[in-house]
Amino acid sequence: MNKKSLKKGKLPQATIARLPVYLRSLVMLANKGEQIVSSDILAQLAGTNAAQLRKDLSYLGEFGTRGVGYEVDQLINEMSKWLGLLRDRKVIIVGLGRLGGALVGYQGFSQRGFKIVGAFDRDPAKIGMVTDGVLVRSMEELEDFVKNTPGGIDIGIIATQASSAQSVANKMINAGIKAIINFAPITIDVPADVVLRQVDLSVELQILSYYLQKE
Amino acid sequence: MNKKSLKKGKLPQATIARLPVYLRSLVMLANKGEQIVSSDILAQLAGTNAAQLRKDLSYLGEFGTRGVGYEVDQLINEMSKWLGLLRDRKVIIVGLGRLGGALVGYQGFSQRGFKIVGAFDRDPAKIGMVTDGVLVRSMEELEDFVKNTPGGIDIGIIATQASSAQSVANKMINAGIKAIINFAPITIDVPADVVLRQVDLSVELQILSYYLQKE
Repeated sequence: MNKKSLKKGKLPQATIARLPVYLRSLVMLANKGEQIVSSDILAQLAGTNAAQLRKDLSYLGEFGTRGVGYEVDQLINEMSKWLGLLRDRKVIIVGLGRLGGALVGYQGFSQRGFKIVGAFDRDPAKIGMVTDGVLVRSMEELEDFVKNTPGGIDIGIIATQASSAQSVANKMINAGIKAIINFAPITIDVPADVVLRQVDLSVELQILSYYLQKE
Repeated sequence: MNKKSLKKGKLPQATIARLPVYLRSLVMLANKGEQIVSSDILAQLAGTNAAQLRKDLSYLGEFGTRGVGYEVDQLINEMSKWLGLLRDRKVIIVGLGRLGGALVGYQGFSQRGFKIVGAFDRDPAKIGMVTDGVLVRSMEELEDFVKNTPGGIDIGIIATQASSAQSVANKMINAGIKAIINFAPITIDVPADVVLRQVDLSVELQILSYYLQKE
């Protein structure tokens, strides 16, 4: 994934991963009425240090005034531009178990312009239900749905069991989806022109377990 | 978080984050009856390359036979030891909204030895309910619950709204919890002796959004 991703963009992967965190902190400051923020404060809000922040921002352009700080609104605009957030993104989700159901209703998605426009499951008991305003469709409808959505679907979320994740990814890719988030606890393969983010909740717990050991 | 974490362990942080992914792939191979795996195959299953895998494993010790591969069971044991997974971990969760509810029922946690033994919410309508065998308690009970649990609580999961996350973290830390996963979309502060993992689902979508841009 590293090599693939770096080819596509101009920023280091670690910087890309921090931009949304800076952006979240800046929006919080803007909501409080703050117009200027120092690199120390912004770095602290984002859980990093000022040197790292300045380096990350240097990739985006020239910002800030020494001894004064950054203009909050300007940074919000620039970061939103870099992250491609100035337009809404259409998202579908496959797998309406408890995690999938929670994701459909997750307000953080829609608030940030990620609109879940389609939901799919193979369970006949779920097909035809409406959850958070989204109709649950059968897996057989996925390809046509993606192809018939004006502008296409930007992102596919996989929230199935591990055993189905690869075949669901294949269906999404066949339908033309170029970005996938996989919540199933299994590594899946995607072609070089598809970007993939893997979110495994147990991995986070296992990482904490490592740090918990008194060695 | 980087500096803090590195002090505690002997492995690079990126290696630690990959170990659970290797482990998951190894367990899958063991379940299929495989006894030996090559570095190429294991790296592919874990979404990395053989050189990275060999470097990561070199931190753990001497494994594998050139031209033959790694013994699956031996690697599983060694990685479980390094990750501190040879004992169960007791976990509490605060915030029983939809995401919190999905996490309580997430089978991947209990299968891997992470037992959710306590759940807490401030909503009187939820307090007293039992979800997946776990009683939902009031926030006022949290500190005593943690202190009265034999062996203590290993990990606290925050699944509240952003506005409550810091105060919930403070309560967990006051009660003696040393490892926290925060799902709320806000950066929280923890003292140097507490390890923190931040999981923000919208950040993953925003990272994909960056890669989706045709620049």
